[in-house]
Amino acid sequence: MSLVTVGSVAFDAIETPFGKTDKIIGGAGTYIAISSSYFVDKQNIIAVIGDDFPKEMIDKLESKGVNLEGLQIKKGEKSFFWSGKYANDMNSRETLVTELNVLGDFDPIVPDSYQECDYLMLGNLSPEVQLKVIQRLNNRPKLVALDTMNFWMETAMDDLKKALKKVDIIIINDEEARQLSGEFSLVNAAKAIQKMGPKHLIIKKGEHGALLFHESNNVFFAPALPLAEVFDPTGAGDTFAGGFMGYLASTEDISFENMKRAVIIGSAMASFCVEKFGIERIENLTVDEIKDRIAEFVDLTDFDMHHAI
Amino acid sequence: MSLVTVGSVAFDAIETPFGKTDKIIGGAGTYIAISSSYFVDKQNIIAVIGDDFPKEMIDKLESKGVNLEGLQIKKGEKSFFWSGKYANDMNSRETLVTELNVLGDFDPIVPDSYQECDYLMLGNLSPEVQLKVIQRLNNRPKLVALDTMNFWMETAMDDLKKALKKVDIIIINDEEARQLSGEFSLVNAAKAIQKMGPKHLIIKKGEHGALLFHESNNVFFAPALPLAEVFDPTGAGDTFAGGFMGYLASTEDISFENMKRAVIIGSAMASFCVEKFGIERIENLTVDEIKDRIAEFVDLTDFDMHHAI
Repeated sequence: MSLVTVGSVAFDAIETPFGKTDKIIGGAGTYIAISSSYFVDKQNIIAVIGDDFPKEMIDKLESKGVNLEGLQIKKGEKSFFWSGKYANDMNSRETLVTELNVLGDFDPIVPDSYQECDYLMLGNLSPEVQLKVIQRLNNRPKLVALDTMNFWMETAMDDLKKALKKVDIIIINDEEARQLSGEFSLVNAAKAIQKMGPKHLIIKKGEHGALLFHESNNVFFAPALPLAEVFDPTGAGDTFAGGFMGYLASTEDISFENMKRAVIIGSAMASFCVEKFGIERIENLTVDEIKDRIAEFVDLTDFDMHHAI
Repeated sequence: MSLVTVGSVAFDAIETPFGKTDKIIGGAGTYIAISSSYFVDKQNIIAVIGDDFPKEMIDKLESKGVNLEGLQIKKGEKSFFWSGKYANDMNSRETLVTELNVLGDFDPIVPDSYQECDYLMLGNLSPEVQLKVIQRLNNRPKLVALDTMNFWMETAMDDLKKALKKVDIIIINDEEARQLSGEFSLVNAAKAIQKMGPKHLIIKKGEHGALLFHESNNVFFAPALPLAEVFDPTGAGDTFAGGFMGYLASTEDISFENMKRAVIIGSAMASFCVEKFGIERIENLTVDEIKDRIAEFVDLTDFDMHHAI
């Protein structure tokens, strides 16, 4: 069925130990839309850009089947820009530049054609914007997912807590889960966060995989593909969310069994993302490449304990 | 078939955020022997203790079916003693006291009754002692596994490299793999270490599970059980090694498929170990407890991608 994504569509400039880019296309909304496009037919984006954003890129999103009615283009204004530099171990990054530009006063518009949406992905944006999108949908979607980050916990915790009460699943990384809950153990962090609202929780652990907590008593441990080199981690989390939500929206099944599949698909999509700068690796994948990658994930954790002891 | 383990049988004093012990029984050899005892019938230990070691504990090992002919008891000398304190996050520990005592000039004896051993576990000890045990076996075992630590990389790298040439599998943690190889990426670290000798490699990542690299092209990602609280991590790595080698020795099958099972069994045993201080949790397990725990590991990673995309 249909997926609505709200998230930034923006410019990034990235420096990693492997190289450096000029301004390239980035933003959570971009990664989520491209990644989910391999799974769901009807998807719709809510975002804002300036008139500096390249026409080819807008066409590219359209060619991927993304409905852009909710994409506002602000005349004479500039798109959001982020620039960052990764440490040698790729596990930490320094923000060099953040120019909010059009995101500074983003007032999300939900077009009529988005109103029947069943799946809603609230990409990492201010909780205020995330709340507005929920409020502006006439009917509650079947599944609402939210991503956030430490910055919002530090500057907008009240709004974030309001938003959490209205979502079904939160998708964050391990450090964010610890900060949000005040608990070091991820099991205790998950319990604490589930009490804040979301029934389900995904904790992304980068090279260590991801944990899915589905309702109160189901846990799934998803692997990450052991990679020789992570070229550029930017957007990996959003690409994960896009694969995850795109698959759920296409199958219309939010059971534990199907969410496990969705986590594997999200992980497979993220494993492509880190292989090149920006969206380069994920913008032109073939179905066979995706199938082969998923098969690698199956092999990676497959074992048979039958009659072992 | 038979397993020979060389490793310390010693005293520990442990402080964690949950409590503090007096001198309790510890040592790599102790954990490995107890853990493997649930799987292999014939096992044999090579170790040295002082006459301060409690008779009940020697009896306990004997009651577990451990052949103690290779256990030297030094009159008038003291057993190895280690004392350490864990940080609040349990991810780092500080060594408070190390008294080598009898381990200082440990000359391992390999009794005739051990000579037909098929499986050899070289617990974390000086590479010189590990090499002596290999040399003193008349026939090369079917599988030789080695554990080591950063201390030996810093003080005895030449001997460690000699030992690595003679072993089939090395079992170390992620930081040790990085230090030994000089590579940050664990995939590259594994390749570099395999060139040093061992065909197989297990990298233990604590709460993030373990990676098995079997020969040059097989990789398995084993989960760790998400635990609300890790009470005391002391001995978890040795308990893993004991379950792993005990299962391999009992099944006499070192194929990739069976090593995957052995990794899951080692992980299950380690997950018990951390629940209480020292050997308290692993010394009296029932077969049903172990079976149930293994079933939890199966559930944790089980998914079915059939016809997913």
